[in-house]
Amino acid sequence: MHHNFSPSHYFRTIGTHPVALTVASGDTVTIACVDAHGIDGNDVEITPRGNPMSGPIAVAGVAAGDVLAVTFDALTPLRSHGWSYPTLAGNVVDPEYVRELPIAPGAHLSKEYWDYDATTSTLRSRGTHGKALTIAYAPMVGCFGVAPSRGEAISTATSGPYGGNMDYRFLTTGCTIYFPVAVTGALFFIGDGHLAQGCGEIGGTGVESAMAVTVTLARAPMQPISWPRAEDATHLYTIGNARPLDQALQHATSEMHRMLIECGADATTAAVLMSQAIEYNIGNVFDPAYTVACKIAKSVLVTNGLTATFRP
Amino acid sequence: MHHNFSPSHYFRTIGTHPVALTVASGDTVTIACVDAHGIDGNDVEITPRGNPMSGPIAVAGVAAGDVLAVTFDALTPLRSHGWSYPTLAGNVVDPEYVRELPIAPGAHLSKEYWDYDATTSTLRSRGTHGKALTIAYAPMVGCFGVAPSRGEAISTATSGPYGGNMDYRFLTTGCTIYFPVAVTGALFFIGDGHLAQGCGEIGGTGVESAMAVTVTLARAPMQPISWPRAEDATHLYTIGNARPLDQALQHATSEMHRMLIECGADATTAAVLMSQAIEYNIGNVFDPAYTVACKIAKSVLVTNGLTATFRP
Amino acid sequence: MHHNFSPSHYFRTIGTHPVALTVASGDTVTIACVDAHGIDGNDVEITPRGNPMSGPIAVAGVAAGDVLAVTFDALTPLRSHGWSYPTLAGNVVDPEYVRELPIAPGAHLSKEYWDYDATTSTLRSRGTHGKALTIAYAPMVGCFGVAPSRGEAISTATSGPYGGNMDYRFLTTGCTIYFPVAVTGALFFIGDGHLAQGCGEIGGTGVESAMAVTVTLARAPMQPISWPRAEDATHLYTIGNARPLDQALQHATSEMHRMLIECGADATTAAVLMSQAIEYNIGNVFDPAYTVACKIAKSVLVTNGLTATFRP
Amino acid sequence: MHHNFSPSHYFRTIGTHPVALTVASGDTVTIACVDAHGIDGNDVEITPRGNPMSGPIAVAGVAAGDVLAVTFDALTPLRSHGWSYPTLAGNVVDPEYVRELPIAPGAHLSKEYWDYDATTSTLRSRGTHGKALTIAYAPMVGCFGVAPSRGEAISTATSGPYGGNMDYRFLTTGCTIYFPVAVTGALFFIGDGHLAQGCGEIGGTGVESAMAVTVTLARAPMQPISWPRAEDATHLYTIGNARPLDQALQHATSEMHRMLIECGADATTAAVLMSQAIEYNIGNVFDPAYTVACKIAKSVLVTNGLTATFRP
Repeated sequence: MHHNFSPSHYFRTIGTHPVALTVASGDTVTIACVDAHGIDGNDVEITPRGNPMSGPIAVAGVAAGDVLAVTFDALTPLRSHGWSYPTLAGNVVDPEYVRELPIAPGAHLSKEYWDYDATTSTLRSRGTHGKALTIAYAPMVGCFGVAPSRGEAISTATSGPYGGNMDYRFLTTGCTIYFPVAVTGALFFIGDGHLAQGCGEIGGTGVESAMAVTVTLARAPMQPISWPRAEDATHLYTIGNARPLDQALQHATSEMHRMLIECGADATTAAVLMSQAIEYNIGNVFDPAYTVACKIAKSVLVTNGLTATFRP
Repeated sequence: MHHNFSPSHYFRTIGTHPVALTVASGDTVTIACVDAHGIDGNDVEITPRGNPMSGPIAVAGVAAGDVLAVTFDALTPLRSHGWSYPTLAGNVVDPEYVRELPIAPGAHLSKEYWDYDATTSTLRSRGTHGKALTIAYAPMVGCFGVAPSRGEAISTATSGPYGGNMDYRFLTTGCTIYFPVAVTGALFFIGDGHLAQGCGEIGGTGVESAMAVTVTLARAPMQPISWPRAEDATHLYTIGNARPLDQALQHATSEMHRMLIECGADATTAAVLMSQAIEYNIGNVFDPAYTVACKIAKSVLVTNGLTATFRP
Repeated sequence: MHHNFSPSHYFRTIGTHPVALTVASGDTVTIACVDAHGIDGNDVEITPRGNPMSGPIAVAGVAAGDVLAVTFDALTPLRSHGWSYPTLAGNVVDPEYVRELPIAPGAHLSKEYWDYDATTSTLRSRGTHGKALTIAYAPMVGCFGVAPSRGEAISTATSGPYGGNMDYRFLTTGCTIYFPVAVTGALFFIGDGHLAQGCGEIGGTGVESAMAVTVTLARAPMQPISWPRAEDATHLYTIGNARPLDQALQHATSEMHRMLIECGADATTAAVLMSQAIEYNIGNVFDPAYTVACKIAKSVLVTNGLTATFRP
Repeated sequence: MHHNFSPSHYFRTIGTHPVALTVASGDTVTIACVDAHGIDGNDVEITPRGNPMSGPIAVAGVAAGDVLAVTFDALTPLRSHGWSYPTLAGNVVDPEYVRELPIAPGAHLSKEYWDYDATTSTLRSRGTHGKALTIAYAPMVGCFGVAPSRGEAISTATSGPYGGNMDYRFLTTGCTIYFPVAVTGALFFIGDGHLAQGCGEIGGTGVESAMAVTVTLARAPMQPISWPRAEDATHLYTIGNARPLDQALQHATSEMHRMLIECGADATTAAVLMSQAIEYNIGNVFDPAYTVACKIAKSVLVTNGLTATFRP
């Protein structure tokens, strides 16, 4: 079944908030998302800034300990432009280099707007700050996940085992993300759409835009997981969220070892294979918790007789 | 001019050691490298283990403050097999997961051998530890660089502004790496060849093999750099080496900002572009210093009217 | 005015929960606290484990942007024994040393009990795990703070600008702690009493006991602060909570510089003095966020004509 | 036997350099040390800046695997003033705070001079930068250690298992420091005297002065150690040097556990005791490697029947 969901209230924490929509496992929902500043497709700020989330959407029959599979079916911009900030974060450059940044960290920032040209599938900045630039359109969503455990309500500026503001650019159309479920119904939240974004979201922004996000939400027939996982046409991923990056990497690497065992490898084989075959990507390095993804090509798993998908 | 260099002595530190060969800027050298355990192409341990280096090779006319360009022309295995260790490092998994590793960190390790099949361009492990595995042949060199400043002689287990044990898999044939030169002649060292290696070298080994490495060494007509840079057919890279990963990332990101300014961007334009267009890769996360690479597609630079190569 | 507060409900998050008691600024409250496992003074588990908090206590007239001063007037154990776990956390030892720990991280742990002898002011362990030990009685409280901003409800396992599970042993009787207030009434929470605790709470426990805590809560006539501060007979403190320790130290050091300017130093004088006169202590290094305190002797401030107290 | 040693050459790396003096185990040496800028007691720069070391001093009969005990017998300033820099390092404050520092990190710095008054045992700054300040005279030495393994020669800006630039203020007169010996004769180096220094050396300087250091050097009858240890009248210490602080703390904590086992505790007892009785201090947080010390009171060891000294 397909649903349309346009929130009447947005949340700036991910937590066990009152359910806004309940769907069946396997249903598809098209969700209207404002941008990181609460601005909608008509360029109206309809809710306070700070990664406001659409949700929570409960998935009937999903319980704590289960895994929720979220498949990105489509990402559609709700307006023909986005915006970004024209500087870099202080924490991604050397301390001695902070004074070289074009704008002081924490200063009031004015926006650089980018126009989306669907014909050429490009974004073009207006050059308010520096030179006008052209880059490829590559939409993705920065912040999404499920209610954390213990009754926590956590700011959408950060991330954890429940997902959150991971800003990992390869979680996009065609990708399924698997979350560990902590509460009945999972309680899915999403927002913070980007028309494009470099690794790390190192200036604190992608090209921020309101976006209609179509996702299929389903209970995944997997054993419990500790951290988010993902799957697209070519790779399986595990994702760790923590600071410093070293700890995010430890989470993602441990989860990859556990995942490969579930794919049919024994613990030694998984270790031997990982040493020679995994890759790491870096997600958000702007916010309190950083994100590291560990990935492995499905082709390597297939070649070696291992399970290469978690999709039914 | 082309040289062949087969060392009579190997070094386990990178430092201002007696010059073994002097070449002219622009010369090509084919260098015989033993593997990380000092084992040569005939499977004979000819020097003590611990990333023994071939070198130093001095490049005439290169002075402190200059930049040395090292282009990988060819990597040729000197034997038809390599080896790896069948475990993961303790520092890349969660502390609570260390006891789940198949082999204790620091335990005496026996090797898993991998046979190289040039016809299929694959490596096949013998299955001594776990299951026999097949992966793609993807040769690279783990450790290389130039003498550090201040008379330091630094273990080939680690890395720094001068290069060293970066274990970054994308530094391979067709790639040019640029090093900041600290001493007269630069003093180039190289070793630690891998037939393949996952990101991070998370078990402490790639598929280790003796290797003949053909490089072209030249003075690059660049202004002084602070960290290694690299260039291949598609991307420009900056590389930071430090622990934790957060600091390595800071080094690489600061250097990318400086580099883009040298490519013709003003400081603001460089920041705006980086936020939306850079990617990060993770090199070595096994050893004292970790490696993060920041990269940007040459196509993005060309589209936006920026210099996209440092090659003459 | 003096109040007695014995909660009917305990919280395992610190957040904007329904007020349990409202007091006037300057009032004193004696608060019954269960131990970290929800066990009271009669050795009965009356609420689920995980640092259950007594609170929230609202202080009338305190608003967001204000500073709440919490003075520890008395700490009284509610039973004559406490307990600790007989191991160390995996994250405080080298990864290669994790397998040397007497008990695996994450394993089911049985408790070591300690008896409190008020006559000698000592604690004596029963020797269930290893040898019986005698240490000094030195009571303190591990977890306390005020509701965070943005509607967050944060697990009492961790800490932040609002306080939380800092486990800093020098915050004890005679000490005043200053918190930045984010919500009307501040909403004070407290729990996790320890009869003694080493720096870092490196095994995950102090000597855990139910405790009656007497505090005076008052609006402090200070300008807004960014991180907790503290004051006792001899020192002023600033406290940073984050992971890694490096970041917690950055928070505490920045706040110390700001504090010394409020004490009458110009920015340069503050820097010159800090280089030669501050000390660091380490609080919790067990939980998600770590704690670093920066302190300076009041005597140094007095000698140099600077304000040495924030008490009225 | 007592020796006087005034170097004719200073080293800015700690390594296996030509022996300048050989002493017997148990001998005492008074060593002339220039300050961090190579300036001697007559205010003459006699060697290039960068923590020049006096040494190496070989101790006859000491071999790799042994432990060298270095006892500080006396520290005597060689001039009546020292100097410091009037700013804080960028890496010890929040990235957003770097622009608030009175002087940019990396800027050319002019010195603040401090006069030593032996009568009052105080230091008084001249107020060139900010206000004139008075602090207590508390001499210590920032950088000392023994030659590292593997033929490394490591910059005196940093530190490691061999010691180096630890800048830990509690290593001073009356303290014995124990180093793991990597080469024949140990090869002791020392320099970088401070008339006072706050924890962390957070501005990059203590009150820098030339100093005569009297030490007794002896082979300690201990089993091999992994990291430096120390002992004074009241405490035993273990010291870890690494970045980030989290790793330095892991080194120090692991070594403390090993040390307590050597003091007579079993592994479980050592863990139980450490959780309730250790303290941490922070040494250098300015340079590439940071320093954390873990300490325990000798009185606690005595009370519990454990060995409380390594002195003969």
